[in-house]
Amino acid sequence: MHSVSTLQQLLENELQKIQFPGHPKDLYDPIRYMLSVGGKRLRPALVMMGCEMFEGKINDALPAALGIEVFHNFTLMHDDIMDKAPLRRSKATVHEKWNSDIAILSGDTMFVKAYQLILSVDDKYLRSVISVFTQTAAEVCEGQQMDMSFENDHSVSITDYLRMIELKTAVLLGCALQIGATIAGANNKDAKHLYEFGKHLGIAFQLQDDLLDVYGDSKKFGKQTGGDILSNKKTFLLLKAQELSNALQRQTLNQWMTVNISGSEQQKITEVKGIFDTLDIPLLAKMEMENHYNNALHHLDAIKINANNKTILKEFAEQLMVREV
Amino acid sequence: MHSVSTLQQLLENELQKIQFPGHPKDLYDPIRYMLSVGGKRLRPALVMMGCEMFEGKINDALPAALGIEVFHNFTLMHDDIMDKAPLRRSKATVHEKWNSDIAILSGDTMFVKAYQLILSVDDKYLRSVISVFTQTAAEVCEGQQMDMSFENDHSVSITDYLRMIELKTAVLLGCALQIGATIAGANNKDAKHLYEFGKHLGIAFQLQDDLLDVYGDSKKFGKQTGGDILSNKKTFLLLKAQELSNALQRQTLNQWMTVNISGSEQQKITEVKGIFDTLDIPLLAKMEMENHYNNALHHLDAIKINANNKTILKEFAEQLMVREV
Repeated sequence: MHSVSTLQQLLENELQKIQFPGHPKDLYDPIRYMLSVGGKRLRPALVMMGCEMFEGKINDALPAALGIEVFHNFTLMHDDIMDKAPLRRSKATVHEKWNSDIAILSGDTMFVKAYQLILSVDDKYLRSVISVFTQTAAEVCEGQQMDMSFENDHSVSITDYLRMIELKTAVLLGCALQIGATIAGANNKDAKHLYEFGKHLGIAFQLQDDLLDVYGDSKKFGKQTGGDILSNKKTFLLLKAQELSNALQRQTLNQWMTVNISGSEQQKITEVKGIFDTLDIPLLAKMEMENHYNNALHHLDAIKINANNKTILKEFAEQLMVREV
Repeated sequence: MHSVSTLQQLLENELQKIQFPGHPKDLYDPIRYMLSVGGKRLRPALVMMGCEMFEGKINDALPAALGIEVFHNFTLMHDDIMDKAPLRRSKATVHEKWNSDIAILSGDTMFVKAYQLILSVDDKYLRSVISVFTQTAAEVCEGQQMDMSFENDHSVSITDYLRMIELKTAVLLGCALQIGATIAGANNKDAKHLYEFGKHLGIAFQLQDDLLDVYGDSKKFGKQTGGDILSNKKTFLLLKAQELSNALQRQTLNQWMTVNISGSEQQKITEVKGIFDTLDIPLLAKMEMENHYNNALHHLDAIKINANNKTILKEFAEQLMVREV
């Protein structure tokens, strides 16, 4: 079995080798650019890991793995337009470097390319693989729409939020693992357990992200903490605080969210964080995170294969969750 | 066998019956709206006709037919954003009624839904149907990109133009017919002939559209003639005129294309049309159109089935080509 980093390196190479037509240039250049900008290539690595866990050959899973990464990059290209993001990984986004029309159409084409890659899967598994991929793609779109709607929605609940991160982020991790398992010939029950493992791990990971944004070590986390607070992002922390706050605390939160006083950024972070601390929000978020993490591990445990074959995924899950909080 | 109009009526009903989730509202309401705006439903009717021609049951072809129409409407929703079109069929476009972000994401979701519908096809034909659909989807994106690039490209050739309309419009007609034939169990060779029939018919139809825009009876055609001339659209007529014009004619064409003198619209149409006439452009366009039309019929003739089974498609092709010029 290959280590995660070996798989990531292999996938990075293979991704750069995908052949796209030369013309139309304005359709395929942005796709080549997007795929060259980099990324951790975690999702395709999960396809490979799901495959190796059931003793399949990674070469059989390679095209589908690349398809999942191309799909993920399609969603990023369209999300960047909607978020008006100027940069991705310190490089200009496609709609900035070209324009929105090109980013729409190149994105559409990446989506098609994802299907083309996934179509390489053996006949035996074709319906199963294409079905879970298509269902997941629909869910990712739903998650993105929920995320956008939340901005102007003052009644977002914790349940809504958890459902949003499940759809926008977590289901694709589950899908990647399930596809790998299916290609290796895993039975439906095991493949479904692996899907649930990926999904719950994804939710736990996103909750950790919310925590790190406020409580992370900015040097180790790689970005300034408090960004979510400054942008009034409806994270688990904020929504939970709104739920549990008394009248005075809620008033303070609302004031900071509606008024933008320049120069008072640090004060905003300190006061909001103070309310989080008083209400024990970090602990509650950690509990929710650990719930999902444990749920993920239960599903991994339930898979009926040699325990040794689960080691890499278990280690991967552990590493994912020991980012500095 | 059912008449085209019967199939269109049936498809309109079935299209309105497709169930979409209630939430997220801003994702699925635009899809329901887009599908309610209407349309001739020709592409899904072609799936059904391709199926009945090979004595298949239209019910077997229905989900794929709906998938093709949903895909077509996805392309329209994204094209409307790029074209900044305020109206479609006299109703507000999705990006006008909601906004561009919603039109991007609802469009993406329609594309997923198209795959979900097409996935209903029998296992025997799944790879074949999904493959031609995916290949066609890539080509439609390429065609749209070519069309957009043409606006600022002064070296567009007739070959480029014919390739653009082939990709943007014609291949989907071929694809629709081929999918119907495949679902009815047609052999690859016959299904491919039917694809070529649809493709060449599509090119002929688009060339006729170019002709009608300038030479059509505005009452029968349903819109004012000369629109393409006024918007400097690079149609077959204009490109052929640029190719064949002498220095003086080219200068006149270029002047009218670069200068916009308000109030002189009718004069622009008259002068450009005058050059077209002098250079026999309508005749040349008709010849090109008839070439493709005859090519289409040759492919229909080459299909090895009872001639009676071809009648409806032959009549359909004839009716398509007798719009008033």
